[in-house]
Parts: sequence; C-alpha cells; structure tokens
Amino acid sequence: MAIRPTIAAFGQIDGQLAVGGIPIERLAAQVGSTPFFAYDRMLLSERVKLLRSILPPGLHLSYAIKANPMPAVVQHLAGMVDSFDVASAFEMRTALDTPMHAGNVSFAGPGKIEPSIAQAVASGVIIEIESATEAGRIVQAGERLGIRPRVAIRVNPDFEVKGSGMRMGGGSQQFGVDVEKVPSVLDVLVSGGAEFLGFHVFAGSQNLSAEILCAAQRQTVDLILKLAKHSPPVRYVNLGGGFGIPYFDKDQPLDLPAIGANLAHLLATALQPNFPDARVVIELGRYIVGECGVYVTRVVDRKESRDRQYLVVDGGLHHQLAASGNFGQVIRRNYPIAVGNRICEQVEEAVTVVGCLCTPLDLLGDNVKLPRAQIGDLIVLFHAGAYGLTASPTAFLGHPPPVEVLV
Amino acid sequence: MAIRPTIAAFGQIDGQLAVGGIPIERLAAQVGSTPFFAYDRMLLSERVKLLRSILPPGLHLSYAIKANPMPAVVQHLAGMVDSFDVASAFEMRTALDTPMHAGNVSFAGPGKIEPSIAQAVASGVIIEIESATEAGRIVQAGERLGIRPRVAIRVNPDFEVKGSGMRMGGGSQQFGVDVEKVPSVLDVLVSGGAEFLGFHVFAGSQNLSAEILCAAQRQTVDLILKLAKHSPPVRYVNLGGGFGIPYFDKDQPLDLPAIGANLAHLLATALQPNFPDARVVIELGRYIVGECGVYVTRVVDRKESRDRQYLVVDGGLHHQLAASGNFGQVIRRNYPIAVGNRICEQVEEAVTVVGCLCTPLDLLGDNVKLPRAQIGDLIVLFHAGAYGLTASPTAFLGHPPPVEVLV
Repeated sequence: MAIRPTIAAFGQIDGQLAVGGIPIERLAAQVGSTPFFAYDRMLLSERVKLLRSILPPGLHLSYAIKANPMPAVVQHLAGMVDSFDVASAFEMRTALDTPMHAGNVSFAGPGKIEPSIAQAVASGVIIEIESATEAGRIVQAGERLGIRPRVAIRVNPDFEVKGSGMRMGGGSQQFGVDVEKVPSVLDVLVSGGAEFLGFHVFAGSQNLSAEILCAAQRQTVDLILKLAKHSPPVRYVNLGGGFGIPYFDKDQPLDLPAIGANLAHLLATALQPNFPDARVVIELGRYIVGECGVYVTRVVDRKESRDRQYLVVDGGLHHQLAASGNFGQVIRRNYPIAVGNRICEQVEEAVTVVGCLCTPLDLLGDNVKLPRAQIGDLIVLFHAGAYGLTASPTAFLGHPPPVEVLV
Repeated sequence: MAIRPTIAAFGQIDGQLAVGGIPIERLAAQVGSTPFFAYDRMLLSERVKLLRSILPPGLHLSYAIKANPMPAVVQHLAGMVDSFDVASAFEMRTALDTPMHAGNVSFAGPGKIEPSIAQAVASGVIIEIESATEAGRIVQAGERLGIRPRVAIRVNPDFEVKGSGMRMGGGSQQFGVDVEKVPSVLDVLVSGGAEFLGFHVFAGSQNLSAEILCAAQRQTVDLILKLAKHSPPVRYVNLGGGFGIPYFDKDQPLDLPAIGANLAHLLATALQPNFPDARVVIELGRYIVGECGVYVTRVVDRKESRDRQYLVVDGGLHHQLAASGNFGQVIRRNYPIAVGNRICEQVEEAVTVVGCLCTPLDLLGDNVKLPRAQIGDLIVLFHAGAYGLTASPTAFLGHPPPVEVLV
C-alpha cells in the first residue's frame, strides 16, 4: 500500500487521520457537512520551506494559482512565496487581494481578451505574451490607458520535454510564441512603448524525472541566452516548473536536490553573469499544494453486489474528477485512499469506492484494500490539494458544492 | 464532413447557422456575451414529437433531467413528456417547480442520503431504490413523516447490454438491487408500509444499436415478469432508456422505428396483459436534448505555430468537457464543429481549435476542416444539449460561467 507515507505526512491522532492537527471526525464536525476539501496549512508551509532549503538562494519561487485558487490558500502562500502566476482575470483579482505586490504577479495563458489585458495593464502585472495578436492588444491597451504595459514573452521552444504529464512546449503549440517569431513580436512591443522584461519558457507539467527537468532547464537557459542577444536587457527569466508529485504506487518522488543543484549551477554560471539584474523564477503549482490537501467523503451505503463489496460515498467525481481517472488520464489508476477514522486498523477487505452520481464513471477507488468501513465512516482521498475542486464538474447532477477549509 | 446534416437540423439564414430561427451573430448579440449554450425550443419539440410518433401509444415518455437541467428546458419539456426522472434533491426541486405532478417524478441514483429521501417522501415522488440500506431509510422516513412512501426497486439484472457507451447493469454494480436480492428488499418495503409500485431496470446508456436495445428491452420485460410473480401488483415498469445519438463521423443514427415496433410488441403481448394497470416508462435524457443544443464561442486569436494553424476561442473544456474528449471517452474524437457565421463558405483549411485554458487538454477541434475563420468569428460545437455545461469544470482557471439560453 502506497498510502502509508501519505498518511504519515498528515499524521494521526487516536487512530484517526489528522489534518491541520485535527482528527478527521472532529474536523468533519467542525466543517459541518461532508464532502469537503481540507488543506493543511503546516504542510503547505513545510513544502515551501523544503523548496527554499534546496533551491538556490536568489531564485524566486512563484505559485501558480490555478493549481488551487482557494483565497485562504493564496493568502497564506502570499507571505511565503515571491510571486504569483495567474491564468485569468479572476485569478488576478485573487492574487491582488493578497499583500503580494502587483509587480510580482505574472499573467499567462492563451486567448487573453481585451478586458483582461486592460485589467492587467492597469494593475501593473507582468503580462506573458502568447501570440502576436496579444502583443498588439497589449500595446493598444497601454496607449488607451496611458500606462506602460509590463511584458514578457512566453516562448514556445524548439525542443520538447519528454516524460511530462502534459507537453506544453516544442513542435507546434497553442502556447507561447515560436522561437523564430520572437524578434517580430519584440518589435511590436518595443516600438509600441511596452516595457519588455524578459522571457518565459514552460515546456510541460507533472514530470517526475529530475534528469529530464534539469535538461529542460539547461536548454531553456541556452535558449534565453540566444534570444537575449537580440532583445532589450533581460530582467525577468521564468524557467517554468513542471515538478511532478507521486500519485500512484509505482511513482517515485522527484529528486529535488538534483534539481536544486542544477538550478544553482545555471544561476551561477549562466544567468547571474549574463543577466545580473534579472529576477529568475521557478513557477510551481501542483508541487506546492498537491500533497497538502485531502478530499473527505462519508460512507452513505455499503452494499454487496455479487462478487464485489461497494462503499457508496456522499461525494464523487463532481468534486474530485481527477481521482475518477477522467481528467487527462489515459489509464485510470487509484489515488491513495484511506478510511480516515480507522487508519490504524488492519486492512480487511478489497472494496470498490464509488460516488453518489448516477454514472459508472463515478469510481473513486477500484478494488482497494481497506479496513472494513461502515456507513458513517470517512473516506479520504489524498493528493487533492491541486486541480481538485476547480477542475471538477461541481454542478453535475445538482448536488451541493463541497466546503473547502484551510486548517 | 458529418457536420452538414447537423447544420441542416438547425437551419441557416443568410449564410449563418440559425438557432431558434435566429442567425448566430444576432443571437450572440442578444445573449450579450460569449461563450454561451443555446438550445433550440423547436428542435426539442420536434424530437419529442418524433418519439411520440414512433413509440407505441400508451408508453410513457420520461425525461431524465440530469442530461440538461436548465430550468427553461425542463419547463418546456414539462408540457410535452409524461414524467421526469431526477438524480438529486436539487433536480427534484427543478422538476417540482414545473407543472409536472409529483407522482410523475421518479428519483433514482445510488447513495441517497436521509435528507433527500425525506424530501422525496414528503413530495410524493416515486423513489427508485438502489439498495437494502435505502429501503430501510425510506421506511423510516415514511414513519417519521407519517407519509406512505411511494417506491419502486431499481434492479441490477443478471444480463448485460453490450455496445453501450456506459454499462450500468449486469455483473456487480453500484446501481440497483441485484435480482436475487429483490425479495428481501421487497419484504422490508412491504412490511414497512411503503407503497410498492414496480420495477426499474436501466442497463446502459448511449447505445446506437437498435438490435441490442430491443434485446435488452425483451430481457428486461422477461425479468420483470419473473419478479412480479412474487411481488405486490406491478403498477410501474421503467424500462430505462440508453438511446444513443451519433456524435462522430462514422456513427449511424439509432433505428428508432425498430425500437418502436419492439416496444409496441412487448406492450401488447407481455406488459399490458400481465400488468393492465401499469404505467410503462421509457426514460430518455441525451436522446431528447443532446442534438438540440450548441456551444458557441468566439475566436479571440488566430495563430500559426510551425506546421499548424490554431484558432483560440474564448471558451473551452471548462464549459464543454466532453468535446475535449476528457469525460469518459477512451479515444478523443472531434465533435461536429462549424464556423457559425460562415457556414456556406468553402472549406479552406485544416485548423486546430483550442480553448483559452492553460492546458493542452483544452482541445475542441483537432485538425478540423473549416472555412477560413477570423478573430471575432463564432465557432459552434454541436451536440452540446446534453451533459455539456453541468458536466464541465466551470470554475477551472476562474473564467466567467457561460450563459445558457433556450430560443
């Protein structure tokens, strides 16, 4: 069972999983209803501290809000990370509602429309340009508002990062400006009076190989060095992120020290010498929050159907779609799962945990080995801190939305 | 291109797709924002009329609200179908807000919790029981409220329906009561004073083979005849539905006349002779609404990246997840798609249509052949009438929710 280290991270009290130091049954009572998402404030802090201890000093750590935009989580992280990345005007407002300085907020994503661009220019955030069209829109918004836009170019590199959960760079892409088109986009920006800050390269996400990530970082730095020869001074280098977390039994955690060493080397030998004034950023979402949250549901039915035991819970894929295997996964695998109020009990049976939706897709644990759970028990799905609630079809079948708490 | 018949169903005006008789650009202006979902009132009516003309008289037609719970759609259908099926307390309220009599509303789905069961008992809807636990809860709710619960048993048959998009019967299942356990559940209900009405068998969904559906209906009727030998008089027979719609190029529309003939035969030879007082129900969701709706987005960027042309639209998988291939599909295939304001123009290019989310999953049309579209044009995705908005992660990345209109 891969769940043991997962449980250990949260800790236990009197045989129950603890989140934020609160036993799960008490937490459920405190929340007042199930299902709910609970994020552990201390685990979040520890994760950031771990990154700080291993990544080189001087490297800026950015949190990609899209991974978990709960305002309390974003507020908490505002005091711990150096910057925020946002993917929509709404996320931008969430970021600007924290003490984070607007100059440390970057706004990326394809298809930015005029109103969002105007909001971003007016706010003074760094707009990461994904296309020539956007460059033109930003210049126009700047002229209209009488404010100098602060811009970086997101570059679609001419290399690919292998082994990523999702490839977002290399070949043809909806993301970023192809390397070979960067000069013409730069022209539009510079002649249009925008303040050019630098480059962003983000080539993939959810990668568990430090070796591949290090190679991608080296290639990214090489690429930016080349681009900088024909650009205004570079004061912003966003190396992307892509650090994966281990979701499944056979996944090995990322070798973070290897990545730290690689980044230290790149910083010392290439980035700081060439761009002494540049802010160099690593942008992480899932890696910061993913393992710090759980999705908690209550068993509402227990039924045997022929050769299978089913636990029916009051939640389902409408809250935690990824755990059902229906969000980008090719093969469905079980997320770590536990009976939250019986974590010290012996594993007694193989059960299938399903949600309350009227669809066979609503499968949360397929033939998982658990202590014998009863109606009323709390089933906990781990790794629910990132791309959980907001990446799920909450209105499906009209069940009430779950509560989110940060404890 | 499979889109031509799709377009023909809606019709065109001055080279534009018409929905509800309104050219799509005017409709977008009327809605006031993109993206939006538009459902065609006349197509909905025609679909119900088609079903009425082919299904045998005396067969009740039920609409499964989960396919599209937009209140205006449900209100419109309330005057056309005989009954509603609901899958949650919220859907039950939507149904009861229409002129539909509560006695013609059925409530199915695993994991029904006490409060929803109490609401259902108090409302007088037919509760379709999915487990022994639920039977007990219903009896208790009836005693507590002093109201006799009206119940049917959803049966997990001992046969499987092949060729369904989703299998929901046969083998071991989270749905329904295994055939062999029906007698004991009946005992609980009858001894507990519930009003037993009959049986529901629903074995699968999105099936395009009339032959398979007819065989399943025959098996279902046989099963219910057998079960009725040891049950109180049967006054309700829900044969399920599972009628599929053709989403993709090679899909052939369902042979509805064959199904109508089969149902007429079963009604005349088996159901009416054995259950003269029974209401016999076919329950359809997707088949009624699926082809009557479109998802309309606006092109906000057009970019060439190396060997590909991209159209970036202001919508995406956060509104229409199924079209991105991320909701239960094993292989991603393109939903029918058109440039809504250029439907009479020549197909000129192969383009990739992507949404505005920062994820490569947000793919709405992969290398589709379309007339040359410009920024500002309206991209229309067909077959958005069922399992569209409510089956999508609307909060993902924090973009505003789309409007829904019935025209």
